[in-house]
Amino acid sequence: MAIIAAVDSSDRAIAVVERASELSREYGVALHVVHVAEPTVDFREELIDVSADALNPEGGEVPKQRLDDLRTAAAETAAAAAADVDDLEAYEAVGLVGNPATAIKQYASEHDAEYIVVSGRKRHPLGQALFGSVTQALLLNANRPVVAVPHDRADS
Amino acid sequence: MAIIAAVDSSDRAIAVVERASELSREYGVALHVVHVAEPTVDFREELIDVSADALNPEGGEVPKQRLDDLRTAAAETAAAAAADVDDLEAYEAVGLVGNPATAIKQYASEHDAEYIVVSGRKRHPLGQALFGSVTQALLLNANRPVVAVPHDRADS
Repeated sequence: MAIIAAVDSSDRAIAVVERASELSREYGVALHVVHVAEPTVDFREELIDVSADALNPEGGEVPKQRLDDLRTAAAETAAAAAADVDDLEAYEAVGLVGNPATAIKQYASEHDAEYIVVSGRKRHPLGQALFGSVTQALLLNANRPVVAVPHDRADS
Repeated sequence: MAIIAAVDSSDRAIAVVERASELSREYGVALHVVHVAEPTVDFREELIDVSADALNPEGGEVPKQRLDDLRTAAAETAAAAAADVDDLEAYEAVGLVGNPATAIKQYASEHDAEYIVVSGRKRHPLGQALFGSVTQALLLNANRPVVAVPHDRADS
């Protein structure tokens, strides 16, 4: 059992981690702060090479190293978001690589997450309220409760 | 402080009340099960009459009675949703009248709700996943966390 805080590298992450931390405390389950690195299009081609390399054990070292680097950088982004929150108790900083919504959903299943906490609406420069695409994809596809945390308090 | 379960009259309400009940237990705050009756277009015209009647204290009895009737029926819908949930502890069944998202948002503010719990995606007959309009409006406009509870478990 776990509470998943799905964070990006923006300052919206703070409210997400705060709320997820509160849920983990109330429910008495672990807090996982997760950031997903999206491979660039170029790197996606290398990922295809990884599959090809699986047939050729001498190849594939560089893509594997790049995957590890991406995963490490993503975990550092997660840790940085958590570091911005005061009085945070124990948590695990997790870096994943892939499509953010898919990777978070899979991670949530593997860890039997009680909730996935995400950033809610964002204000478009023209004033329109919008969902982020990751939030929208999780709300539509996750098979467990998704908590959308507002990060602006424009109205009552 | 309170947890708000915003329910419609469909069987999706059960999962919403179950999850809201769990949150109210974990947080130790009251559970309010809320249903909003939307006035028909015809009745909206009577609501306008109510305002006009405010200038004329002899009028307005019928619209006031109809408002009360709608509110009572809405509270009964809320109570019926709660009655479908096993082992539900104390809760308050609340009937409101108006635009559902606006009424729930206002009620949540008045009661300093910790969470608003709503039904998440629904499957369109053609297989597409969709938000209900009330859920979408609350996710975009509520200034507090909204929990979207899935009610189908189509995928892992």
